Amino acid sequence: MTLLRAVSGVSAIDELLSDEALVASMVTVETALVHAAERAGVVPAGVADQVDRAVAGHDVDPEALAGASLSAGNPVVPLVKELLGLVPAEARPWVHHGATSQDVLDTALMLRAAEVSDLAADRLGVARDAAAALARRHRADPQIGRTLGQHAVPTTFGVVAAGWAVGLDAARRELRRARAALAVQLGGAAGTLGVYGGAGPDVVTALADELGLVVPAVPWHTDRTRVRCLAAALGSVTVAAGKVATDVVGLSASEVGEVAEGGGAGHGGSSAMPHKRNPVRSVLVRGAAIRAPGLAATVLAAGLQEHQRAVGAWHAEWEPLLELLSLAGGAADRIADVLAGLSVDTARMAATLEAARPAVMAEQLTTVLKPQLGRAEAQRLVGDAVTAGDDDAVVARVLRGTGGTGGTGGEDELRAALDPRSSLEACGAIVDAALAEIARPDTEA
Amino acid sequence: MTLLRAVSGVSAIDELLSDEALVASMVTVETALVHAAERAGVVPAGVADQVDRAVAGHDVDPEALAGASLSAGNPVVPLVKELLGLVPAEARPWVHHGATSQDVLDTALMLRAAEVSDLAADRLGVARDAAAALARRHRADPQIGRTLGQHAVPTTFGVVAAGWAVGLDAARRELRRARAALAVQLGGAAGTLGVYGGAGPDVVTALADELGLVVPAVPWHTDRTRVRCLAAALGSVTVAAGKVATDVVGLSASEVGEVAEGGGAGHGGSSAMPHKRNPVRSVLVRGAAIRAPGLAATVLAAGLQEHQRAVGAWHAEWEPLLELLSLAGGAADRIADVLAGLSVDTARMAATLEAARPAVMAEQLTTVLKPQLGRAEAQRLVGDAVTAGDDDAVVARVLRGTGGTGGTGGEDELRAALDPRSSLEACGAIVDAALAEIARPDTEA
Amino acid sequence: MTLLRAVSGVSAIDELLSDEALVASMVTVETALVHAAERAGVVPAGVADQVDRAVAGHDVDPEALAGASLSAGNPVVPLVKELLGLVPAEARPWVHHGATSQDVLDTALMLRAAEVSDLAADRLGVARDAAAALARRHRADPQIGRTLGQHAVPTTFGVVAAGWAVGLDAARRELRRARAALAVQLGGAAGTLGVYGGAGPDVVTALADELGLVVPAVPWHTDRTRVRCLAAALGSVTVAAGKVATDVVGLSASEVGEVAEGGGAGHGGSSAMPHKRNPVRSVLVRGAAIRAPGLAATVLAAGLQEHQRAVGAWHAEWEPLLELLSLAGGAADRIADVLAGLSVDTARMAATLEAARPAVMAEQLTTVLKPQLGRAEAQRLVGDAVTAGDDDAVVARVLRGTGGTGGTGGEDELRAALDPRSSLEACGAIVDAALAEIARPDTEA
Amino acid sequence: MTLLRAVSGVSAIDELLSDEALVASMVTVETALVHAAERAGVVPAGVADQVDRAVAGHDVDPEALAGASLSAGNPVVPLVKELLGLVPAEARPWVHHGATSQDVLDTALMLRAAEVSDLAADRLGVARDAAAALARRHRADPQIGRTLGQHAVPTTFGVVAAGWAVGLDAARRELRRARAALAVQLGGAAGTLGVYGGAGPDVVTALADELGLVVPAVPWHTDRTRVRCLAAALGSVTVAAGKVATDVVGLSASEVGEVAEGGGAGHGGSSAMPHKRNPVRSVLVRGAAIRAPGLAATVLAAGLQEHQRAVGAWHAEWEPLLELLSLAGGAADRIADVLAGLSVDTARMAATLEAARPAVMAEQLTTVLKPQLGRAEAQRLVGDAVTAGDDDAVVARVLRGTGGTGGTGGEDELRAALDPRSSLEACGAIVDAALAEIARPDTEA
Repeated sequence: MTLLRAVSGVSAIDELLSDEALVASMVTVETALVHAAERAGVVPAGVADQVDRAVAGHDVDPEALAGASLSAGNPVVPLVKELLGLVPAEARPWVHHGATSQDVLDTALMLRAAEVSDLAADRLGVARDAAAALARRHRADPQIGRTLGQHAVPTTFGVVAAGWAVGLDAARRELRRARAALAVQLGGAAGTLGVYGGAGPDVVTALADELGLVVPAVPWHTDRTRVRCLAAALGSVTVAAGKVATDVVGLSASEVGEVAEGGGAGHGGSSAMPHKRNPVRSVLVRGAAIRAPGLAATVLAAGLQEHQRAVGAWHAEWEPLLELLSLAGGAADRIADVLAGLSVDTARMAATLEAARPAVMAEQLTTVLKPQLGRAEAQRLVGDAVTAGDDDAVVARVLRGTGGTGGTGGEDELRAALDPRSSLEACGAIVDAALAEIARPDTEA
Repeated sequence: MTLLRAVSGVSAIDELLSDEALVASMVTVETALVHAAERAGVVPAGVADQVDRAVAGHDVDPEALAGASLSAGNPVVPLVKELLGLVPAEARPWVHHGATSQDVLDTALMLRAAEVSDLAADRLGVARDAAAALARRHRADPQIGRTLGQHAVPTTFGVVAAGWAVGLDAARRELRRARAALAVQLGGAAGTLGVYGGAGPDVVTALADELGLVVPAVPWHTDRTRVRCLAAALGSVTVAAGKVATDVVGLSASEVGEVAEGGGAGHGGSSAMPHKRNPVRSVLVRGAAIRAPGLAATVLAAGLQEHQRAVGAWHAEWEPLLELLSLAGGAADRIADVLAGLSVDTARMAATLEAARPAVMAEQLTTVLKPQLGRAEAQRLVGDAVTAGDDDAVVARVLRGTGGTGGTGGEDELRAALDPRSSLEACGAIVDAALAEIARPDTEA
Repeated sequence: MTLLRAVSGVSAIDELLSDEALVASMVTVETALVHAAERAGVVPAGVADQVDRAVAGHDVDPEALAGASLSAGNPVVPLVKELLGLVPAEARPWVHHGATSQDVLDTALMLRAAEVSDLAADRLGVARDAAAALARRHRADPQIGRTLGQHAVPTTFGVVAAGWAVGLDAARRELRRARAALAVQLGGAAGTLGVYGGAGPDVVTALADELGLVVPAVPWHTDRTRVRCLAAALGSVTVAAGKVATDVVGLSASEVGEVAEGGGAGHGGSSAMPHKRNPVRSVLVRGAAIRAPGLAATVLAAGLQEHQRAVGAWHAEWEPLLELLSLAGGAADRIADVLAGLSVDTARMAATLEAARPAVMAEQLTTVLKPQLGRAEAQRLVGDAVTAGDDDAVVARVLRGTGGTGGTGGEDELRAALDPRSSLEACGAIVDAALAEIARPDTEA
Repeated sequence: MTLLRAVSGVSAIDELLSDEALVASMVTVETALVHAAERAGVVPAGVADQVDRAVAGHDVDPEALAGASLSAGNPVVPLVKELLGLVPAEARPWVHHGATSQDVLDTALMLRAAEVSDLAADRLGVARDAAAALARRHRADPQIGRTLGQHAVPTTFGVVAAGWAVGLDAARRELRRARAALAVQLGGAAGTLGVYGGAGPDVVTALADELGLVVPAVPWHTDRTRVRCLAAALGSVTVAAGKVATDVVGLSASEVGEVAEGGGAGHGGSSAMPHKRNPVRSVLVRGAAIRAPGLAATVLAAGLQEHQRAVGAWHAEWEPLLELLSLAGGAADRIADVLAGLSVDTARMAATLEAARPAVMAEQLTTVLKPQLGRAEAQRLVGDAVTAGDDDAVVARVLRGTGGTGGTGGEDELRAALDPRSSLEACGAIVDAALAEIARPDTEA
């Protein structure tokens, strides 16, 4: 089932999640465990190097491993068998010593998760920077705001892009936090490190050191907090990218045409409909975002794990976690491309806003009039006036309705209130606040 | 990511869902479309055979196709390109004629879904029959009923197995109904069959005939009813199997030991813990059942599709659908094995029930006493009596509490009420009703 | 938490789901059970009437019941206690006789589900009919088809509305099928009907007859097939309505303006933005549709129920099921209103299509040219020509590119291919097929 | 639909989530907004106090408000109308000044979320402390470890309880982090603070100060990061409690009987089955945990929000968020009770372990033998020996199999390996590490 995944994922990330990569990580965990146990004094000196040499250069065939996984219910059992066939007899007692299959597979999955999370966080940083650049560039470029699908009041494209940057950066920080907590798993058959005698905690510490993962306070065979935090963060990343993609799809609709995805090698074309310029990357990001909630829910649901090892829930976690890594990584990668290559048609934005005026300035006009007329009367008069026609007609009708005063500021103030700039005074500050927010060091929450 | 799937799926089903099988179905759809269009008179006579000959024996490489799918956002665009390279120039205008990518991928997915559903329904039938055989065999074998984890009142293993049979059969019927509705997809770019002129509906009918799928009333590019019905049925199948697996895991717990999964080649053993006999298949079925809800939810959520073709939701459907097919097929297959090979320890069942007596007969005893004593007094007396010790002690205390009468039937009735058989009189009828239920023709709901 | 539900639900349906209605159904089940048991001969003659008289006119206070439910973990235990306080002593042994709490709550929930499903199905029928009327009225009114947010090729609004009608009707049929399967629950403490002796099945049959529900083959305390089929159908209803709502929101966007929700009493207005006409009902239907998948997934997940009564999963079902009923009923009701009151602006549809021409006729033009030019050359020439300007310019360029022939049919055929009608020939037949599909008797699948 | 919620929730928390509490928070937000705007200079001095006085003591009727919410699609529109009826005419222009409905409802929901999160975090702290006390008390009390439902190797109940403490504390920290990020929402119609001119950011800052919430960098109308982080944390809390509840249910099963929920006023009893002692609270916690994933998934899915205000997704968030707060709060509260009142039967634990010996010591025995015999031969010999009978028989067979040596340490070492203490040497350190982990200041991750 790789064919359709190729569309939702991206190859740089899916390679990190391939069977080959996962098997390599399992082998890495097994060899690192021998080193760790040797460092902790529970395996004779020199064995770890023996094992390294025996395993070096050996290619495990994932397909054969898969076939052999069925009876045990996991691929670690046949992998250990295969490794035992490689190492010299005197080293064999120390391969997989004191570990259980879940120790190896959990830790290997954490290694995969760590690498993909790092890459996804990098791409989210690129995406955030591209959004921030759009925010700076279009800081004061007016655009109609849209609520419930309807023209509402003016905004700027700078504010829109600033919101994208903040959302992507928040997801990036969440992912980095979840990734920083990823720990080795080592507990043995029932989480007691029983085979190592009193040296158990030292083996765990050494293994974490070998692999660059966190030392957990206790084995977490059936405490899946870290995994579900990671899943939640990956879901959040995918949806944060999906929010941007949703806006891009909406703004690039034929009737709107305010932005367009950069083409690149044949992206989004249709041979039968040469006029089409489909926002393909954004569509795929949205596709990923629609899938993420079900997968994150599964990982969360799989947290109800019985006693020292679960009766199904652990197995249920594997593929959803890998898929979330693939989807989040793919979404981060694609949305970075979308934002970096986005065509922005500020003239079209301006024209759409102009066509929506003066009606969309009603709230500003009301704001000017309500101190004098009272709230209800101001709303009534404005509601009536904005259907009158162009600015002149609106102003004329308001003047007539106010006995010529036009509120406290007279006709000038009325005309100012019909100018979009009157409602955009805070937009620069909003963009600045967003840029400051994303510039905070990653150590801050 | 095939390695871990190999554990949750089963090879006979996953082969039907492989990239190779999906690509073959896409090619089948493309060639069938030429035949259908030719039959409807919109493609010149003889072209379909030309295309068949050109395509025959050609192997599409799914990996290359995957790589080429990215820019279009689906694998059909590069597949058509590849097919065009095979067919003679005069046939090229008629390849993929009037179709859109979604027509081909949707129909190919329906072909895969149909085959897997048929196989899964067969295996569910086997599982149901095995459960029914258990129900017949253990029709009158008493077992303690367990509610909220606690011993409640007696049941029979026959009733338990009859419930499994009914549950599995209901899921099988639901799957067959959803499968029977699977239709071809053909609408062209916007679901109007525009390229075929007035012959459009004839092309659809001919295509359905070529492929053995249903003729839909209208193109269903963005009406995903059939897909979500199928997903719901697949979810139901997986959970129905998961319910049985949950019971098997519970009944085979070390402290319970009333059933055990049949071993078979090394299943469920542990080299480090030779005493263990893990219910591996049931654990894997439960793992599948924990995953199904998130996937079915995704397919349901993906039903919110915009206009004539969705902006992401269609893409979100592909992999969850394939995974549900894999999980449901795998669960059906495994639960059939579990039930066919189940070891049942009726002696252990009887011993557990006996150890739980006489306390678990309190409700029967109350039933005997409450016409005479009134409800509250009967409950009070029985609640007190069942802690007295063995049957004799209970009877003695009830006799004392009833002034020697022991209710309307005297001591004999009291002793009868302490016998599990007193509460199992309907169990045979329940088993019979279950067997009748599953014997109904499939044409009934 | 009723305040926010009031927005997503509708009062006519939420009244059927209120605490008062649920308590009333529980009382109905308890009294019907006495009648059923009397009919089956396990309760003395005359008791049921005694109970009826004692309970008649008594109002159970749901709030007090709620408070008393905590220690038992369900509201049936305190309800039975309350009923016992009403009935004469001689009838007390026969209240709740042989039943368990789950029997009463499950059956009461089925009564609520049946009523709401019937109402929802009715409203879906109204919605379907309104969509069918739109399909008939706008059978030949052209509209631009939109795929991936982009103008694609022409369709008709009749085809669009026909698709809505088919989708709504399919969901309606699915709901009716699930509703028709709703059964009474009666099994006693462990599903054996043990207290009734051999008369158990007769009590079940009589209870089903009293309540108008189906007789199940076996007690279904931990076989939740019917519940999850209902949940799936309710999810499907909500999403089918949501698909229509999604289209209405999209077609009523300010830039599109092809349809508008009927106003009605103040719907969708904004005092601050008097120009807005928010598609409020469609937005709420979409809100319901976004919630349905998570709830349906929960009901599906809750199917993993242990032994004779579950350790949590049954409790997890209650509120999601009620919420799905509320959401599906509300969505069905609202979408019926939306469709019945929809304003359709065919002039705007025509204008948008005209503005998108001749580019969107490229596929038709290619169809005309490819027999003569070959596929690739036809696509190349058309791709180039449609950027040339208006129809005349396109025709001129194609003529030049074909050495003046313009394909087999000459200039006339070229001009015909640029006319939207050339691609809409099958649309009438599609509408007819849809109308026939929904006219089938409900007894057909 | 309060009746069934009363079972899943707890009253202290559900009061904080009642319609009354939510309406009160909406009123609080509206009055605080006038103060904030006055402080920022965009509302005349003195108006806020006028509004306070006018609103003071006024009771909004949630039911009436609910009825009036339908046409606007949210309860803020009728609430503002109601408030305007209370305040003097000169203050009316400044009520809800510059705000949009979503500003008020989002902020009010954040106030509710903050209070419930604080309470839930407190109860989680109590639960964690109770688990930690169990870990200290039973630090060295042996218990059989259970994996896949089968007896595996020994552990201690101290390690089990230590794992509970760590899991609950991790969820508590996650919840506190999400709660600390809860921000005011204020942006006006399209998120530009347009009505306030340049003073917009000052109004936001003042409002956050009034309400004790965070100042967001930008309005977050369609950036739902904080909401989904909160939902994820609430889901994690519920599942962390559910993991403990799952273990309690398992350990209190009739056949296991190692722990029991404290009774308290009638908890868990059954009048019909007086022998039952149902773990009701744990069952309800599990019920909550089964519901949480679907709700968290909905909040995540609702993050795909369009432009400046969503077409349905915002509405979809409200109730799932409130339900997650209710479920997480209820689960935290109940699991604290469960852990504080847990009966632990160490004698039963010891007896179960003793009955499972010597087979469950196979791994320890193998560890002793494999340096001398090699891995395969040691496993073979031990696998054979542990079926021999009691310790003496096992030792005798191993001695025979090793030519009398019994490995390097002789018979003494063999006997030591059959003693559970041989595999529990690290358990004290694991408990200590857990206690240190939960003792870290909350400022650490």
